[in-house]
Amino acid sequence: MVSEEMYALGTKKSTIRTIFEYGQKRAGEVGAENVFDFSLGNPNVPAPDFIRAAAVDILLHSDPMEVHGYTIAPGKPQVREILAADLKKRFGMEITGNNLFLTAGAAASVTITLKALAEPGDRFVVIAPFFPEYRVFVEACGGQLDVVPAKTDDFQIDLAALEEQLTPQTKAVIVNAPNNPSGAVYSVETLMQLAALLHAKEHAYGHPIFIIADEPYREIVYDGITVPCIPLLYENTIICYSYSKSFSLPGERIGYILVPDSVADFARVYGAVAGAARVLTHVNAPSLWQLVAARCAGRAADLSTYARNAALLYDGLLAAGFSCVRPQGAFYLFPQALEPDDEAFCERARMHDLLLVPGTDFGCPGYFRAAYCVRTEMIVRALPHFQKLAEEYRGTT
Amino acid sequence: MVSEEMYALGTKKSTIRTIFEYGQKRAGEVGAENVFDFSLGNPNVPAPDFIRAAAVDILLHSDPMEVHGYTIAPGKPQVREILAADLKKRFGMEITGNNLFLTAGAAASVTITLKALAEPGDRFVVIAPFFPEYRVFVEACGGQLDVVPAKTDDFQIDLAALEEQLTPQTKAVIVNAPNNPSGAVYSVETLMQLAALLHAKEHAYGHPIFIIADEPYREIVYDGITVPCIPLLYENTIICYSYSKSFSLPGERIGYILVPDSVADFARVYGAVAGAARVLTHVNAPSLWQLVAARCAGRAADLSTYARNAALLYDGLLAAGFSCVRPQGAFYLFPQALEPDDEAFCERARMHDLLLVPGTDFGCPGYFRAAYCVRTEMIVRALPHFQKLAEEYRGTT
Repeated sequence: MVSEEMYALGTKKSTIRTIFEYGQKRAGEVGAENVFDFSLGNPNVPAPDFIRAAAVDILLHSDPMEVHGYTIAPGKPQVREILAADLKKRFGMEITGNNLFLTAGAAASVTITLKALAEPGDRFVVIAPFFPEYRVFVEACGGQLDVVPAKTDDFQIDLAALEEQLTPQTKAVIVNAPNNPSGAVYSVETLMQLAALLHAKEHAYGHPIFIIADEPYREIVYDGITVPCIPLLYENTIICYSYSKSFSLPGERIGYILVPDSVADFARVYGAVAGAARVLTHVNAPSLWQLVAARCAGRAADLSTYARNAALLYDGLLAAGFSCVRPQGAFYLFPQALEPDDEAFCERARMHDLLLVPGTDFGCPGYFRAAYCVRTEMIVRALPHFQKLAEEYRGTT
Repeated sequence: MVSEEMYALGTKKSTIRTIFEYGQKRAGEVGAENVFDFSLGNPNVPAPDFIRAAAVDILLHSDPMEVHGYTIAPGKPQVREILAADLKKRFGMEITGNNLFLTAGAAASVTITLKALAEPGDRFVVIAPFFPEYRVFVEACGGQLDVVPAKTDDFQIDLAALEEQLTPQTKAVIVNAPNNPSGAVYSVETLMQLAALLHAKEHAYGHPIFIIADEPYREIVYDGITVPCIPLLYENTIICYSYSKSFSLPGERIGYILVPDSVADFARVYGAVAGAARVLTHVNAPSLWQLVAARCAGRAADLSTYARNAALLYDGLLAAGFSCVRPQGAFYLFPQALEPDDEAFCERARMHDLLLVPGTDFGCPGYFRAAYCVRTEMIVRALPHFQKLAEEYRGTT
């Protein structure tokens, strides 16, 4: 009567959602202040004042037909020119507004790109640990997902393992850095090695292999790290971006796809992006937020809360005896679980009212994700519970 | 290298877009005031002041985390309750917020619904004249489109012709009223006959046949007409709505899907809608506009311009010798072309700088669409050109 596949996708709760709902219920029982919910990757820094000021000013002083009318599918030309000029200045890329296609956020950007590229039989490579929704997106576009196991010593890329996943059917590699859930930023060295490997395979297979660079966390980085601009290292790179995290606007759904001139046959790729947006009925990116993004181009929100939280939770977990790669960006910590079975570990943590997501969900068993986009004082109050949990494990071994 | 299907969909210009672009070019040659572009269905009434006031007030006085944060996929519960209460009051339907799933506009509403329902081999019926994008939406969901020929004397539904299109594989009938392009509103009598026919076929085939009621023009009606509430006449009706036209917000992408409790197996249908929204990566309807829609529930924009334009163009065309069914709503006129070949007719109209869309595009050859969501004075200045065109045809016959 309905599509069983859609019904299953719409009703089967994700692990993260199940944990979150448990947390809400548990808060009702023991008080919200006694539940330490690290499950959700939801920005907890409010949108900056300059966003509010820009939106209000546009609403009050611009022609409503200009603000709220349909835009052409790729987005308002003048908005794209402004965003392109800013990207050119920041990253030294040669781009214009014609390289941008505005979208309703990162999920839309990635799915539109996948749908644009996917031909029957195509395979897409992801690097563990990886955002679990990639599997849904790839399979919805008729593609098959191949997973490169995690390089757990530093969460860079195991290039030998990646090479094993490349086949003549490989259409693209999804690269997500700063990474959800590991917090790793792939270094220029890693990316140059990746580029060399892909170049060799492109030559061997006789067709392009794209990098789909999913970069919603690009502006959340620590310790002076910058995220390398992958198109400058590898021509066939398509960037998927969202303002959800950098401007704390996840509900508004605004982002873009950047198709550089350097991709093989730019016109075909950009045209297919337009077609994919059309069939996925992303008619145009919300028009007010197109204007706000342009007005705020070059501005940066104060995201220092995430750095403070990262340091506090990282130091606290290390002091409690956890082992963890220091995050370089995003707002997640991905420590080793205190037993090999990460799901059992997260169950046990739950007994201490610590809500964590098993690494298995991200294709990386034996680890767990703690999202620290939470109030700093919750981290302070949670640390003794992490300590007790670790002591409990030490007592049983 | 890319999906050929997506490339074709993204680059093959629609007839409407081609006409519009010609108009822009021609305006550069002879002056914008001398080109009479009736090609685009783009609201020309600005969003009402109460929309601006609501948006500004929410931005200035609400917590940005509440305004801009992710919402749950179906939309903010309190927003859905308010919208449901308003619909209950207006239409006498028994609904709550749980019957609504907020979306990014009507195209998303229809596609999500199609994707939720479509099983392999399913067929979907449309009634000519029909919005051409339905074909793209249905085929993108793996369905097959069956077309009921137009009942050109009044643009109601030819039920005998519709019956011929119903098969055991028919999953749904798309009903669009006020209709784009005919301006017809299907009467209660027509809809009751349709309901009786579909009930009989449901019984014969042993499975539900849904009505997908696509109603973005619901509030644009003339002469005291109201749009019948189809779920009150036929249980298995799903309404797809958008605020694009009623509040002149097409660029912002905000609307909803209404799944009434009366549909067969509500939980399965609503669950599949959620799954379809997920794979089409409509993560949540833009959050500010969810709040604005709730704040403005029950309010009505002044859309009298459309009624004035309808009367002016209708009377003018009749006086010039055209034959046309009087529109009851939306913002289109769908007169008979002055020769059987509507494409040749539109070409000839173009020589008079009248930009019209051939009825063939809407599955109804021999007619043309004139969108009158334009400045009233453009209609005034266009009428003599319609007269000259009609005289030219009279001279040649």
